[in-house]
Amino acid sequence: MSSVRNFIASNKDRFLEELMDLLRIPSVSADPAFKQDVHRAADFVKSQLEKSGVDKAEICSTEGYPIVYAEKIIDEDAPTVLIYGHYDVQPADPYELWDSPPFEPVIKNTNIHPEGAIFARGSADDKGQFYMHIKALETLTSLNQLSCNVKFMIEGEEEVGSENLDRFVRANKDKLKADVVLISDTSMISLEHPSVTVGLRGLTYLQVEVTGPNRDLHSGTYGGAVANPINILCKMIASLQDADNRITIPGFYDKVEAYDQSYRDELNKAPFDESDYRKKLDIKSTWGEKGYTTIERVGIRPTLDVNGIWGGYIGEGAKTVLPSKAFAKISMRLVPQQDHKEIARLFEQHFISLAPESVKVKVTPHHGGEPAVVPTDSPGYFAAEAAIEEVFGKSAIPTREGGSIPITSLFQQELNLDPILMGFGLDTDAIHSPNEHYGVKNYLMGIETIALFFNQFKQQFTKANG
Amino acid sequence: MSSVRNFIASNKDRFLEELMDLLRIPSVSADPAFKQDVHRAADFVKSQLEKSGVDKAEICSTEGYPIVYAEKIIDEDAPTVLIYGHYDVQPADPYELWDSPPFEPVIKNTNIHPEGAIFARGSADDKGQFYMHIKALETLTSLNQLSCNVKFMIEGEEEVGSENLDRFVRANKDKLKADVVLISDTSMISLEHPSVTVGLRGLTYLQVEVTGPNRDLHSGTYGGAVANPINILCKMIASLQDADNRITIPGFYDKVEAYDQSYRDELNKAPFDESDYRKKLDIKSTWGEKGYTTIERVGIRPTLDVNGIWGGYIGEGAKTVLPSKAFAKISMRLVPQQDHKEIARLFEQHFISLAPESVKVKVTPHHGGEPAVVPTDSPGYFAAEAAIEEVFGKSAIPTREGGSIPITSLFQQELNLDPILMGFGLDTDAIHSPNEHYGVKNYLMGIETIALFFNQFKQQFTKANG
Repeated sequence: MSSVRNFIASNKDRFLEELMDLLRIPSVSADPAFKQDVHRAADFVKSQLEKSGVDKAEICSTEGYPIVYAEKIIDEDAPTVLIYGHYDVQPADPYELWDSPPFEPVIKNTNIHPEGAIFARGSADDKGQFYMHIKALETLTSLNQLSCNVKFMIEGEEEVGSENLDRFVRANKDKLKADVVLISDTSMISLEHPSVTVGLRGLTYLQVEVTGPNRDLHSGTYGGAVANPINILCKMIASLQDADNRITIPGFYDKVEAYDQSYRDELNKAPFDESDYRKKLDIKSTWGEKGYTTIERVGIRPTLDVNGIWGGYIGEGAKTVLPSKAFAKISMRLVPQQDHKEIARLFEQHFISLAPESVKVKVTPHHGGEPAVVPTDSPGYFAAEAAIEEVFGKSAIPTREGGSIPITSLFQQELNLDPILMGFGLDTDAIHSPNEHYGVKNYLMGIETIALFFNQFKQQFTKANG
Repeated sequence: MSSVRNFIASNKDRFLEELMDLLRIPSVSADPAFKQDVHRAADFVKSQLEKSGVDKAEICSTEGYPIVYAEKIIDEDAPTVLIYGHYDVQPADPYELWDSPPFEPVIKNTNIHPEGAIFARGSADDKGQFYMHIKALETLTSLNQLSCNVKFMIEGEEEVGSENLDRFVRANKDKLKADVVLISDTSMISLEHPSVTVGLRGLTYLQVEVTGPNRDLHSGTYGGAVANPINILCKMIASLQDADNRITIPGFYDKVEAYDQSYRDELNKAPFDESDYRKKLDIKSTWGEKGYTTIERVGIRPTLDVNGIWGGYIGEGAKTVLPSKAFAKISMRLVPQQDHKEIARLFEQHFISLAPESVKVKVTPHHGGEPAVVPTDSPGYFAAEAAIEEVFGKSAIPTREGGSIPITSLFQQELNLDPILMGFGLDTDAIHSPNEHYGVKNYLMGIETIALFFNQFKQQFTKANG
């Protein structure tokens, strides 16, 4: 057993305990009620970085939640890996659907994780994943085996749009100077089929509000004569996708790349069992844009989902109200070349045009992010391949993932760095859902892989740059 | 001034105070949290009936909320008026849209009510209206002028479907024996244009639930490949009405009467200012079934309204969830000959047929009621006409109202009595909405009109029956 693997095995319980302490802090960035907790999580991360061997760690204030920055510079001439992660988490509601409280982590065995998984909000997204990097650093510094410089940038607003990170990166280009960005905030196919994400979708997220009459009305007295904003909103939303599930917003597909069949064939070679997928979700059939496979639908095609809808009486029993207002949160996943701000504009223009004059419509953009594609011929990618091969005994499969990490394109544009998206989660981890969890084995193998990446990167970088 | 009007004027303050005491009891039948309050309202009504001169008053238990029964029998041979009303109220939420707390009644002047209106949940629907009957009885017994027998049946489940009233009426036909049912739970056009309701729409109210995947999913990882129950629900709801706003449920219109043009012309003669209507609701245009006027749309045509919709993340900020479930409450107003149970069946059948196999659909009928038409040539109708003429100095206009009082058809079928729907509310009273109110003048003129009705009914009944 290598010294790295040995060190991780010897410290396994403590590595898990520390992560569970972090998971106990309900750092929900979307809800102001958790403000103190979000700050507490930042302090905890800083203090854990300090204990793990960095030269310095600091809390960088922003107009929102702080960014935790830390660095370990072993040699000015050695290549530098910049780690990105986020210590904030998604809201945990609906709480009643959790089998154990979301902020009281417990380890339970499951079919997919016979060696246990940590159940808690943020366990996979992203606390359990970025914390691996801190433990990988500790492992290498303890063993005196670190061969590259490492910088950490862990933010607290990823789940709400990373607006202040954007400003921070633009203002601190020197401080963040590095040769690669390494991010673990994605999933792999499985422990048997390790993969590296090489494409991510972008995101445009908006809220819409439809107003009918100026007050709630009695649906008996007014029903049939006054536009009901819920009925109208449903009609408007329904018309956003046609019978083939193509999005009807004019111009929406203008920049979407039509991949040739050989590329699509390659993509569809990734191990994927559709009947197992359906079974796990308890659905009779998948659903999406006509003419594409499930892998293509989440990988190379844009989408439109209503993430929330509300209006009228939603309590127990019956209330015969014709409400004044109806609301929806709508997001679109974007593919390379689609510009999230342009799509927001196209959406707004089209959505407003759908409304009959009997109602008023307001569209409020929430946040967005650009899609990303990662080249597979960089020193960083080679390092990831080599590290995965060594730990998993198998070649990494390059995959395109449906989710978005909006800041990846920020790194490309502002720092001129291609991010390496080496995540260790699984699609079944239930991120953003009740009972989120993260495999113990994924956590430990992740730490090992990241430690090996640090050293592999030095080699690959030197090879490429002579 | 007549002795009746004089008595009411002298007791005005007390009559208002008593009503406000009743309005302070939050008797929301739809929400179990208010259970004790609903019972308290029943007790209050019983005790007020006792103080107002009835021979006996009783709380009749049911499987749900009790029915308050009372009677004043002056002469076994005199005709009998049965009063129906309800002491339960609609839920008051959204509370934040009330200018004053819904269960702390206050009298404020408004443009429409320069002599004041009582603002409170239930002020118009129906506490303020049924309480007029108790005060009308008190007026006549105090003046020793009552010339007919009066029975009261005041229930506590009107807002949730009157299920137990149904059983109560079937089981107590002797006790409830009467010559007319008088109900004040509707509105009139205005104090300047007094009217009597001669048609009411029926109601079918259902809740629908659409289930996609078995848990909330991340919309990035799964979006585009798994049916989103909100998107699907919107499509299903949208398809329930066509471009002409006709309802698309097969068989829905089969029993709907197509009135001839002369009937429609007559209906459209009722005073109605569409531009004023739009202005009061702050809408640019009305909206409804093609080919019909606003008066026809609420009077003689059936409708379909979504009364509530919810699903996914509805909190602050953004959550990129592809939810497991989406829900809606949907109701249809029905016109004569449409059977509410048949319509519920047709809806359920059709709605389920709309669902793609990627989702599961559940339809739960809530409650319903049959439409009603009231003849205008009965002693009861003549008595209402005469009483209104005397108090308002104007002829009553017969109108068809969009709302439903499901129990009217119960009285027709089980007691063989045509109800007289003599309400004194206004359409602007905001029933079922925040800031519900009831005009002080409407209340006082209503008491006077009802008192005169009692005596007019004796005359008209005697005339008709020799």
